Amino acid sequence: MATTGMDLKEKIRDIPDFPQKGILFRDITPLLRDPLALDCVVDRFHQYYRDKNIQVVAAIEARGYILGSPLALRLGAGFVPVRKPGKLPYKTISQEYSLEYGVNTLEIHADAVNKGERVLILDDLIATGGSAAATSRLVEKLGGVVAGFGFMIELTFLKGREVLKGHDVYTIIQY
Amino acid sequence: MATTGMDLKEKIRDIPDFPQKGILFRDITPLLRDPLALDCVVDRFHQYYRDKNIQVVAAIEARGYILGSPLALRLGAGFVPVRKPGKLPYKTISQEYSLEYGVNTLEIHADAVNKGERVLILDDLIATGGSAAATSRLVEKLGGVVAGFGFMIELTFLKGREVLKGHDVYTIIQY
Repeated sequence: MATTGMDLKEKIRDIPDFPQKGILFRDITPLLRDPLALDCVVDRFHQYYRDKNIQVVAAIEARGYILGSPLALRLGAGFVPVRKPGKLPYKTISQEYSLEYGVNTLEIHADAVNKGERVLILDDLIATGGSAAATSRLVEKLGGVVAGFGFMIELTFLKGREVLKGHDVYTIIQY
Repeated sequence: MATTGMDLKEKIRDIPDFPQKGILFRDITPLLRDPLALDCVVDRFHQYYRDKNIQVVAAIEARGYILGSPLALRLGAGFVPVRKPGKLPYKTISQEYSLEYGVNTLEIHADAVNKGERVLILDDLIATGGSAAATSRLVEKLGGVVAGFGFMIELTFLKGREVLKGHDVYTIIQY
């Protein structure tokens, strides 16, 4: 692709104090709005994962779906949505994780991953790593193998990577 | 693609009484889990829209993203997420729509669509058409042109198509 050298950070908009005071939110919607930029991101993921025998891409609701679905298609892998509670209609398993204040829960369908399948966990951004770590527990409870974690953006100062240690973590843009 | 003749309905699971008693929910997760089936759906959309000069794909949270993002990439169009209230970080406009009981709201970024741009509105399923019609109002408020509506599944008995009349509506699977 001629887009390999594209400056993706130029396509990300900083929004101060969202969703709450003191947080600098990285808004990816200008990047999504640019077909070449979105293609560049999916292509970077594809180049990295194409030889890693990924059978399933498990993406985290909702922005993870925007990157996870085209990546799954390019890899010839299945797509699995990881969702907030009460959204998945079939039998589910769930996993709580801690936030700065309180807890959140993620769910996956009980038949989403087969024993031994190699699963890539994908989201748009890694902050503290809580939702990604919870997803890895869901995959492992189903007997899947966590083949790696992919994020478009890494907020390095939050050290989410340490929560996922022992696994391969690939990120495209770092702050 | 060799998948043109694939029976996609076989990949959709019926869940009675979800999310509430009396509703037969069409669960698309087995289809998403099958790379050939997901590719077939995106390919069908692509074949239909490839010559219709689509500049933007506006997809509705959250399942709409799973189909809208790979379609936008194949069409060389921009991807725009339409979201539930409070999720988009930049300036937004919003539109309410009626449900059987109560109202819901959808939001779009105020700079998501440029005047005169041709926008395809995409979701996984059309039921009564309320969320799709609300999205078309958001697009038109921004000066965009609604070039059509695409849905993987149409629940024909709910007559959502009538709510969108005057527009092109393309669906792949009908019940």
